Amino acid sequence: MSNYVYIATSIDGYIADRNDGIDWLETVPNPDQKDLGFYDFLNRVDAIVMGRNTYETVLGFGGEWPYPKPVFVCSTTLKTIPESLEDKVFLIKGTAEDITRTLDRRGYTNLYIDGGKTIQGFLQADLIDELILSKIPVLLGGGTPLFGVLPGHLEFELLSSKTYLNQIVSLRYRRRRG
Amino acid sequence: MSNYVYIATSIDGYIADRNDGIDWLETVPNPDQKDLGFYDFLNRVDAIVMGRNTYETVLGFGGEWPYPKPVFVCSTTLKTIPESLEDKVFLIKGTAEDITRTLDRRGYTNLYIDGGKTIQGFLQADLIDELILSKIPVLLGGGTPLFGVLPGHLEFELLSSKTYLNQIVSLRYRRRRG
Repeated sequence: MSNYVYIATSIDGYIADRNDGIDWLETVPNPDQKDLGFYDFLNRVDAIVMGRNTYETVLGFGGEWPYPKPVFVCSTTLKTIPESLEDKVFLIKGTAEDITRTLDRRGYTNLYIDGGKTIQGFLQADLIDELILSKIPVLLGGGTPLFGVLPGHLEFELLSSKTYLNQIVSLRYRRRRG
Repeated sequence: MSNYVYIATSIDGYIADRNDGIDWLETVPNPDQKDLGFYDFLNRVDAIVMGRNTYETVLGFGGEWPYPKPVFVCSTTLKTIPESLEDKVFLIKGTAEDITRTLDRRGYTNLYIDGGKTIQGFLQADLIDELILSKIPVLLGGGTPLFGVLPGHLEFELLSSKTYLNQIVSLRYRRRRG
């Protein structure tokens, strides 16, 4: 069982700017909507775990629900899911350990962990096995940082570094344990 | 005239850990002391500008003075330089603009800007033209961050991405202006 992160950050490590904006993700023009490795990545996971903020942001985009895999939303306050999403989105509670164990028991062994706070919680519990970071060539100078405080250093191994659209470097790291 | 940054950071963007430690820079073994592009870089600059902290850290290493180019130390408090370094190290004061202008007038047109606070000051004044970041594959979870608050977004262009020792990715960015 493995947990994966796939996320874009600015050079200075933010996932949203000071106004919660994500326009800067389009700093590098991608007129043909070229895939930056995301669909390959999605094929490797069984389910997606995200925080309420990320879920509500995705809902706010409107249009069709974008995820082809079951989405588990970590929330202690959300009570309901829109009827149209009842077979796609599920509520879940608990620590990173609880969630990983519960989903593993239900057969979801490869999880895509998404959203700043959720990722930070899983990293604090040392429950992230792979980290794929797409570096957008912009300094935001403030906003929502991807990474937070950890109880200690966590070493990783670089698996690959790929450049997309000549500008976005995708760094793929695997947790080096023991 | 151009200002350059060349610095190693953790995956989470720190240049020193919570105890001001830099042992993690050796996370990736380099028994043959292979050059990671630093000497090529040094050849491209005329002088080095660093803050007092960085200067004192380098002094603290003892041994031979490592820089083959004149070093200008930004400090409002330092009054003297050890006699042995009087032809190598010089004190300088003022804003990033002042320092860039002063050194340019003295014929130092390509400057290596070093040290967390100094780099932040130059970035705040939008006086960094090139950013070379060596990403060490470790999360520190706290420490001295390389980047700080900026008045606005700063876009860059990826010039190259190189991998050293199979583990350290060196990202080279040029400021994209106008």
